[in-house]
Amino acid sequence: MKFHTAYKTFKTNHKREFINITSFVREVLIESGVSDGMVLVSAMHITAGVWVNDAEDGLLQDIDDWLEKLAPFADYRHHRTGETNGDAHLKNLLVHNQVILPITNGSLDLGPWQQVYYAEFDGKRPKRLIVKVMGE
Amino acid sequence: MKFHTAYKTFKTNHKREFINITSFVREVLIESGVSDGMVLVSAMHITAGVWVNDAEDGLLQDIDDWLEKLAPFADYRHHRTGETNGDAHLKNLLVHNQVILPITNGSLDLGPWQQVYYAEFDGKRPKRLIVKVMGE
Amino acid sequence: MKFHTAYKTFKTNHKREFINITSFVREVLIESGVSDGMVLVSAMHITAGVWVNDAEDGLLQDIDDWLEKLAPFADYRHHRTGETNGDAHLKNLLVHNQVILPITNGSLDLGPWQQVYYAEFDGKRPKRLIVKVMGE
Repeated sequence: MKFHTAYKTFKTNHKREFINITSFVREVLIESGVSDGMVLVSAMHITAGVWVNDAEDGLLQDIDDWLEKLAPFADYRHHRTGETNGDAHLKNLLVHNQVILPITNGSLDLGPWQQVYYAEFDGKRPKRLIVKVMGE
Repeated sequence: MKFHTAYKTFKTNHKREFINITSFVREVLIESGVSDGMVLVSAMHITAGVWVNDAEDGLLQDIDDWLEKLAPFADYRHHRTGETNGDAHLKNLLVHNQVILPITNGSLDLGPWQQVYYAEFDGKRPKRLIVKVMGE
Repeated sequence: MKFHTAYKTFKTNHKREFINITSFVREVLIESGVSDGMVLVSAMHITAGVWVNDAEDGLLQDIDDWLEKLAPFADYRHHRTGETNGDAHLKNLLVHNQVILPITNGSLDLGPWQQVYYAEFDGKRPKRLIVKVMGE
């Protein structure tokens, strides 16, 4: 059984930014030498998410608008702590903070349009992602 | 350590359809011979989801109405690509695209009402699901 | 390869209650003796969820208000079965029913603010959670 763990730190230029990390996950998989198993891709912060969806710019803007509608930047009780990122916590809950990708024959076993995204909802500061491979 | 991977292709009659796949996942588990471990059940498309919830027809209609309210069929930027399924991408993000089921003593270790569903949001064409078992 | 499975039953005093279970998950991890791997934390009911987020009281109230706004207590078709918890099913779908936590060097490999919560949406009766550790 093999385990391989990698981390990546993001410091985005914008508060919200959606970054395609499929190539990075593939690199970690190659380093691991695993040919059958699973890889966990998980944000290590509570104001960022990870999803699998399409790499299409229009859609990414649609997602951004939609998240802002369902979990708007507003005044939240959480802000009594001095933070102003209540909306980012809610956006994280909405899209989930992680995915598990299957590994078969040494490759990510994804469908034709599936791309892995790191979704930053409260950026401009260093934030980490963990990628953990488990298999044989 | 055992790994076993199965795929299933769905071509639904309706655009949206929620299909109970618990029996299928159980069959894959039996084929795998795994008695302790986990099984990943994941849509391979970005306009379909997988969830664990109740097998109750009224609730399934409630879920359908609710998803249409929160992620409505509408005009999205994504449609400039020629697609008309922007809402299906958002519905996928909302319910998530996968679940992991625990396996204990050779069975899916689910609660009394937990049933696994494949949730099609943009059907009438062939779409795949992956079921991957990992354990001993 | 080691597998270790633990269950915990909750019977909350209120209909909705969000309980920090990070310490419980850590105890299960220690019992397992696993130093590298993953742990699945999953509600065994369809009206409860599990999430990773901040342990901040204001935020927990924000989440509660937000969930009530997006998946309100109301009259649902599901209630024709005699139940009155349609909203709890929708809240479960919204926040997801499970997380997978990475284990590295014998510890939960979480970011600085990440805490694991059991989110009860239809309490006052016994409901179970499963924690399953898999690794070496």
